[in-house]
Amino acid sequence: MRYSSIPSAQSVILHCKAKGVKDIVISPGSRNAPLTIGFTEDPYFKCYSIVDERCAAFFALGIAQNTGKGVAVVCTSGSALLNYYPAIAEAFYSDIPLLVISADRPTYRIDIGDGQTIRQANVFKNHIGYQANLKQDVLHATATVQKYGKALLLAKESPETQQNNINNYNGVELQKAIDYALEERSPVHINVPFEEPLYNTQDYASVFPSIKEEEDPTLETCSRLDDFAAIWNNASKKMILVGVNKPSVVEQQFLDELAEDESVIVFTETTSNIHHPSFFNSIDSILAPIEKLDNKDELFTTLQPDVLLTFGGLIVSKKIKQFLRTYKPKHHWHIDGKKAYDTFFSLSHHFKVDTNTFFNAFLDKTKYKESGYYEYWSKVKLGYEQKREAYLETIPFSDMLAFSKILPNIPSGYQVHLSNSSTVRYAQLFPLKSALKVYCNRGTSGIDGSTSTAVGSSIYAKKPTVLITGDLSFLYDSNALWNNYIKPNFRVIVLNNSGGGIFRILPGQEETDNYKTYFETTHNLDISNLCKMYSIDYKLAEDEEMLEKHLENFYEESDRPKLLEVKTPRIINNKILLSYFDFIS
Amino acid sequence: MRYSSIPSAQSVILHCKAKGVKDIVISPGSRNAPLTIGFTEDPYFKCYSIVDERCAAFFALGIAQNTGKGVAVVCTSGSALLNYYPAIAEAFYSDIPLLVISADRPTYRIDIGDGQTIRQANVFKNHIGYQANLKQDVLHATATVQKYGKALLLAKESPETQQNNINNYNGVELQKAIDYALEERSPVHINVPFEEPLYNTQDYASVFPSIKEEEDPTLETCSRLDDFAAIWNNASKKMILVGVNKPSVVEQQFLDELAEDESVIVFTETTSNIHHPSFFNSIDSILAPIEKLDNKDELFTTLQPDVLLTFGGLIVSKKIKQFLRTYKPKHHWHIDGKKAYDTFFSLSHHFKVDTNTFFNAFLDKTKYKESGYYEYWSKVKLGYEQKREAYLETIPFSDMLAFSKILPNIPSGYQVHLSNSSTVRYAQLFPLKSALKVYCNRGTSGIDGSTSTAVGSSIYAKKPTVLITGDLSFLYDSNALWNNYIKPNFRVIVLNNSGGGIFRILPGQEETDNYKTYFETTHNLDISNLCKMYSIDYKLAEDEEMLEKHLENFYEESDRPKLLEVKTPRIINNKILLSYFDFIS
Repeated sequence: MRYSSIPSAQSVILHCKAKGVKDIVISPGSRNAPLTIGFTEDPYFKCYSIVDERCAAFFALGIAQNTGKGVAVVCTSGSALLNYYPAIAEAFYSDIPLLVISADRPTYRIDIGDGQTIRQANVFKNHIGYQANLKQDVLHATATVQKYGKALLLAKESPETQQNNINNYNGVELQKAIDYALEERSPVHINVPFEEPLYNTQDYASVFPSIKEEEDPTLETCSRLDDFAAIWNNASKKMILVGVNKPSVVEQQFLDELAEDESVIVFTETTSNIHHPSFFNSIDSILAPIEKLDNKDELFTTLQPDVLLTFGGLIVSKKIKQFLRTYKPKHHWHIDGKKAYDTFFSLSHHFKVDTNTFFNAFLDKTKYKESGYYEYWSKVKLGYEQKREAYLETIPFSDMLAFSKILPNIPSGYQVHLSNSSTVRYAQLFPLKSALKVYCNRGTSGIDGSTSTAVGSSIYAKKPTVLITGDLSFLYDSNALWNNYIKPNFRVIVLNNSGGGIFRILPGQEETDNYKTYFETTHNLDISNLCKMYSIDYKLAEDEEMLEKHLENFYEESDRPKLLEVKTPRIINNKILLSYFDFIS
Repeated sequence: MRYSSIPSAQSVILHCKAKGVKDIVISPGSRNAPLTIGFTEDPYFKCYSIVDERCAAFFALGIAQNTGKGVAVVCTSGSALLNYYPAIAEAFYSDIPLLVISADRPTYRIDIGDGQTIRQANVFKNHIGYQANLKQDVLHATATVQKYGKALLLAKESPETQQNNINNYNGVELQKAIDYALEERSPVHINVPFEEPLYNTQDYASVFPSIKEEEDPTLETCSRLDDFAAIWNNASKKMILVGVNKPSVVEQQFLDELAEDESVIVFTETTSNIHHPSFFNSIDSILAPIEKLDNKDELFTTLQPDVLLTFGGLIVSKKIKQFLRTYKPKHHWHIDGKKAYDTFFSLSHHFKVDTNTFFNAFLDKTKYKESGYYEYWSKVKLGYEQKREAYLETIPFSDMLAFSKILPNIPSGYQVHLSNSSTVRYAQLFPLKSALKVYCNRGTSGIDGSTSTAVGSSIYAKKPTVLITGDLSFLYDSNALWNNYIKPNFRVIVLNNSGGGIFRILPGQEETDNYKTYFETTHNLDISNLCKMYSIDYKLAEDEEMLEKHLENFYEESDRPKLLEVKTPRIINNKILLSYFDFIS
């Protein structure tokens, strides 16, 4: 096996290996050659090469999203690193263990006018779990360092002793950073300065890091659980709201138990990956019609929970946030092993355990409470479900109609990636098969990086992946297609309404002369050209019939990936969506 | 005229106008609607709409690079902002007045689980001149703020008084930030929190900022100029080395005077935009052959200057850096109104004035010094120039041969944009017409953003622009073509050697199994698809004859932009370049 002859490069590789970080996404460069050599020469690692660092980081995030394991991105010095930042922020808010490893110039080469040299240390400070700034080796390239008059060696200690100290320091920092990423599910930044020569190798590792074995973290138990149970048992209106959730993390027995309680209603989102016939999966279809009514205050008060119990990540529905911020629950408890956001300005307790542990301990203590809470709202739900079906019969080809055809058609078991903005919002309006696994980057809710994330996430997925995305989001991340890792069973559906149609549904927005250019950003780009460039099978649907026809065999096995573009009329989409909420009222 | 009804949005717009910031590059979003409305409704501003923020920022940087004036980029909250970072770092090191204006959520909405919300304040800390974090208005949307239990209003002061104080605070911060950008030629970040509603407007501005008029900055004069002149006059080996320089900034009379002094040699680079028949424009062609000689130490010592005088930005040639770091000058003086990097670890004085002011005062004090310095090296130069011509006769179609055809063919007066990595390095080997204006992003020397920068820079250029770029750099920034501002006379030449051929010329690099994937990152992408998508005329040259044929009418007037792809053989390019340095030895 070949190693770079630079000790800190060896140290990075040995620590990643010892901690089980296996997937390494490398962007090309010269300064990071010691790392590239080390990772690619060791068959333990599965390496990927992606040129555009912005895509590389989202691709890595996708892998980690799917596997739950730590994934590393490796790049050269300079602005390359900064292109990682959008994905780092997403990982920060979505609790994803992304290890950012950047090669750097030695400190004395920074801000002296060298190329590809910026201030890398602590550059992601606002959105990073841990920042390890490794020290530069002194034994390696001592001559170079001394020639330029910046001798790093201290007179009183032997070079070997000093290098040993550096190895130890770097080892401790590496261990802290990697442990933090894996235990806290967080992005971390490891910055490694390398002196030239960069390409020398040796066939053994000369550093011997002593890497601490992990103990099993003891699960914190919920304190004062009886007190909380008493509150719960006395409340006749209990709402459970579930945000972004990995598929299959909550045991179905607990969900079934909650579904049987008539004092409990469970609001889920498309990204919750939680299903039960009694749950409410289209929050906006409940809330939007009420907003229009004269007696809305009365109805909202009826819905206002005594206890709000939340788990999972960020919430998509703006309407539920607005509702709960105005009609605050008496108690808001959040269950999460790591953090609790005060999303509704009424958080009263954070159960710092995982969801199953909580329910396992808590549900035993709960009692039946007579209530009309579930009964009342389930009738409302039944009402809008019937009306939605009726409404779909009346509308012309549009985003909403297209979604009503696309979503039920996805084969069971598929990974479904939703891009941000209108896609995830439309998907919220429809029920999804419980056998689908749904993902969406809701940490920062950016339109950047959806495609790269989906491609990365598909790598280890046992079933195929379909990405449903809008035209702006898809074009934004078009470089996501520039790699060799897109599987033949990868599927993309682009809802192309020729611009950012989302802005038409935002409240208070009016038509202005500048609107089309600066808000909607209309365009006439033909996506088939990108498909041709990246060898993706392309189909176009411009009406309902074509859409149904193409969907028929869209998921059939194929020898290359497929993209289906669905063109909807730019102007009417918004009206159809607004009329929907009128119709179901 | 319409203004947003949000006072801080009005304040941003009024300050930009008062300070002459006219060009505004807007990316779509909802949170930044108050700014978008304000900028686009006022005919004073020239607004541009670009969706991908990474491209938008480089596009803005290109405009500022060309005009020398401040240019603003405006985006919504969340990860959108982070996509600006690569261009911000480039602006930071290239001294470009880029005003980054980001809409933000109110502080109390950060880290509570809202979408498109990150920690924006001070997020570019490592590479920004000034960070203005504006305060949130209290009069606007008071109700919303108070409803959520986070009343910003203090009891003891009237809301009007408090809003007045906020207006004043924001005014001072805006003035500081914009002044800093324009005076120090630096990127700055202005972060503006907006509460909903975001789309309300009024037809007058309700804030009245008192904006300070600028005094003419007094030029610092060089102190102790006689002492420096004495050193200069006694030195028989004086080297002038010019980095990145805007076109036409140094008066030709000073250059002529320097050219007449036989104790002075002037090394320029392609990016120096300085020309004289006596100057040395291919530094590597002087240095590379010496490196191979047995008596290299003797020759390098002959070349070693007593005085090194530098001006302009960053240096491209690695060889001159290596040489001057080893054979240090006794004195290194740098002329620049703002900063001086110690690039060669021997900086002894920084003349903090502009170059013309310096030469105007200094050259009067200099005297003739007998020396064989210029004479000796001009013979070397003549030698390699002749040999280069001979060498070009012998080589097959390759990057080097293509550059020898492309560069002399560019019509006079053109703006030439060079992308980083191999393009700028090859361009260094050949003389360029003095009537060309050359640009390259050497601040961070990234391969990202070259195309966007060139498109932006072309907007106000009186003559057309040609971008010469490599395949990786071009593909990296393919979204640069996604906008409506590419002029019909815009030209692109892509040197496509199917990957990052640059790595083949880096010292110490060996062929490995992993090399093609992780270093060179080979690909077979057909660029004509991108041209089709973005309505660009496409031509392909795969040999010398086709190249010459296409170049014949490449610069002729046309009704749409043109791209010429030049495919060179991946493997031989590096050998041809290395043999060149052997040949001219």
